[in-house]
Amino acid sequence: MAKLAEYRQIVRELLTEYARVNPLGGEIESETVFDIENDRYLLVDLGWKGHKRIYACLLHVEIKNGKIWIQRNQTDSSLTNALLAMGVAKEDIVLGLHPPELRQYTESGVI
Amino acid sequence: MAKLAEYRQIVRELLTEYARVNPLGGEIESETVFDIENDRYLLVDLGWKGHKRIYACLLHVEIKNGKIWIQRNQTDSSLTNALLAMGVAKEDIVLGLHPPELRQYTESGVI
Repeated sequence: MAKLAEYRQIVRELLTEYARVNPLGGEIESETVFDIENDRYLLVDLGWKGHKRIYACLLHVEIKNGKIWIQRNQTDSSLTNALLAMGVAKEDIVLGLHPPELRQYTESGVI
Repeated sequence: MAKLAEYRQIVRELLTEYARVNPLGGEIESETVFDIENDRYLLVDLGWKGHKRIYACLLHVEIKNGKIWIQRNQTDSSLTNALLAMGVAKEDIVLGLHPPELRQYTESGVI
């Protein structure tokens, strides 16, 4: 349970930091969307570039059964590396964005 | 304040209902992501169609300054009509997905 609280804190910190340091500027905002109850954490860029609507879900991370699932990463940074650097155990990171049958060939966690 | 509580309830009910009645089946899940603290409400479809990753943010609604902002709608249903049917005042609906300078020509709210 202590680990779960720690993982929640790490994921929230990480996405908040992404939102802070990756502003696209202009009329585009980086928004975190944190569903605390269901442990779903997103980072969304939205706004306008002139008349063009910008909308992109950049990051989507979930915590399920004590593991951190990376469901989406549209950035060029490795969330896995960032999570490892923050103290998350490798076997607790699940690459949800990789097909299930390929996950066993990564060094990350599988369900 | 009573109106705000009512609008929150309406938005949450609406997206929960979309998640329930619009299952794509197979290995694709419809997830609501509700950020209660910031009043951001999303509906995301994610999963697999064979080896192909499916990820789509279908709906994104926010409540800001007492108004309901429709930031994204990738469904074929009108969120405006659904909100109106649930008792939301037309001037309290802002079409965030329309360019700001065009919003004045809709009958919906402008900021």
